[in-house]
Amino acid sequence: MRQKKVYDEKLVRSIVKEVLDKLSVAPKAFPGKIPVGLSNRHLHLSQRDLEILFGKEAKLTNLRNLSQPGQFAANETVTLVGPKGRMERVRILGPVRKETQVEISRTDSYILGIKPPVRISGDIKDSGGIKIIGHKGEIDLREGVIIAQRHIHMSPDEARGFGVKDGDSVKVKVSGKRALIFDNVMIRSGPTHRLDFHIDIDEANAAELSQGDLVELIKE
Amino acid sequence: MRQKKVYDEKLVRSIVKEVLDKLSVAPKAFPGKIPVGLSNRHLHLSQRDLEILFGKEAKLTNLRNLSQPGQFAANETVTLVGPKGRMERVRILGPVRKETQVEISRTDSYILGIKPPVRISGDIKDSGGIKIIGHKGEIDLREGVIIAQRHIHMSPDEARGFGVKDGDSVKVKVSGKRALIFDNVMIRSGPTHRLDFHIDIDEANAAELSQGDLVELIKE
Repeated sequence: MRQKKVYDEKLVRSIVKEVLDKLSVAPKAFPGKIPVGLSNRHLHLSQRDLEILFGKEAKLTNLRNLSQPGQFAANETVTLVGPKGRMERVRILGPVRKETQVEISRTDSYILGIKPPVRISGDIKDSGGIKIIGHKGEIDLREGVIIAQRHIHMSPDEARGFGVKDGDSVKVKVSGKRALIFDNVMIRSGPTHRLDFHIDIDEANAAELSQGDLVELIKE
Repeated sequence: MRQKKVYDEKLVRSIVKEVLDKLSVAPKAFPGKIPVGLSNRHLHLSQRDLEILFGKEAKLTNLRNLSQPGQFAANETVTLVGPKGRMERVRILGPVRKETQVEISRTDSYILGIKPPVRISGDIKDSGGIKIIGHKGEIDLREGVIIAQRHIHMSPDEARGFGVKDGDSVKVKVSGKRALIFDNVMIRSGPTHRLDFHIDIDEANAAELSQGDLVELIKE
């Protein structure tokens, strides 16, 4: 004689929902490995500076979308001119921002003849200056040139999966012939962020990394 | 009444010598930190290739001594020509070697348009090729272009101090804003080696290292 089982339907639904939620976010929340996104030299412009460089009411036009939702590489480019050299066709990334910011590598800085600091994006106080030339005008940028500090973008779900939060500093392990462990890697997490480990070309070359290669997060 | 002590004079001399030896090598054998030596692009030439590039019975002349005893930067330079670009005034290091070897960075390789492997110096089988132009002639080098694998030179005394030996692989810890730990760092030890951590410009830029900065050896 079998005993009839009594289920609390509300509890069952709740458990099923919990399991389905976990299953569906699992690949995103616990991805284990993080894809590499290489940042070549680029700049972000304020609307004011965009109009000085490209004319009244100028707008950035989308060449291709970037990994972070809403961000794009624009068709528009500029020339950077430093005391020692110049770099042509430097890509503008959109959309426009509150402040103009130029991100280059240490290698670029030697070519241009400037010595910008390594900074997290947005932290431009007392950073480097540069001349920017567009199709319609030019700017002598007083500050805003940085070498971007390496960082990992991730959604809040992904951050929970890794057990980290926005602003944390972590390590990133790279395998291969030029294996190394990057320290001081900042977590940048928010609803509009997508999993991506951002480094510049110098860092990629030092570790023999290419776009899309997978690396491993290590907590402090 | 004191007992007269009897010393074995030979034993005493041997002990004193041992102690003095230990004392005198102590600062070199346990230096703790290792100075950084930056390698910019350069090449080593065989006598045969030197004569093709600079004429019959050509000799390298010393511009300045390098950190490794007997090694020097020569006054003589060459031009490297790859499928995509060229690099002028590339320094030759002396003395001449058995085989010609060109050492560049990954950044250089993109400019030249070649894809050489990361290798320990001397391991040039199936490495990259390049055209080399000197004052008197040129060479189409079939193989010999590498990206040098990072390594630490040290004397046998220093190796004993660190508890490592020639051919070992260790880690190197770098502090600062771009702190990281280099893995796969090879120990190169012998009587003519002097303590120096050799990296290329990409690696220096990725870690914000300059010539003479101090780094820390970590054993596996």
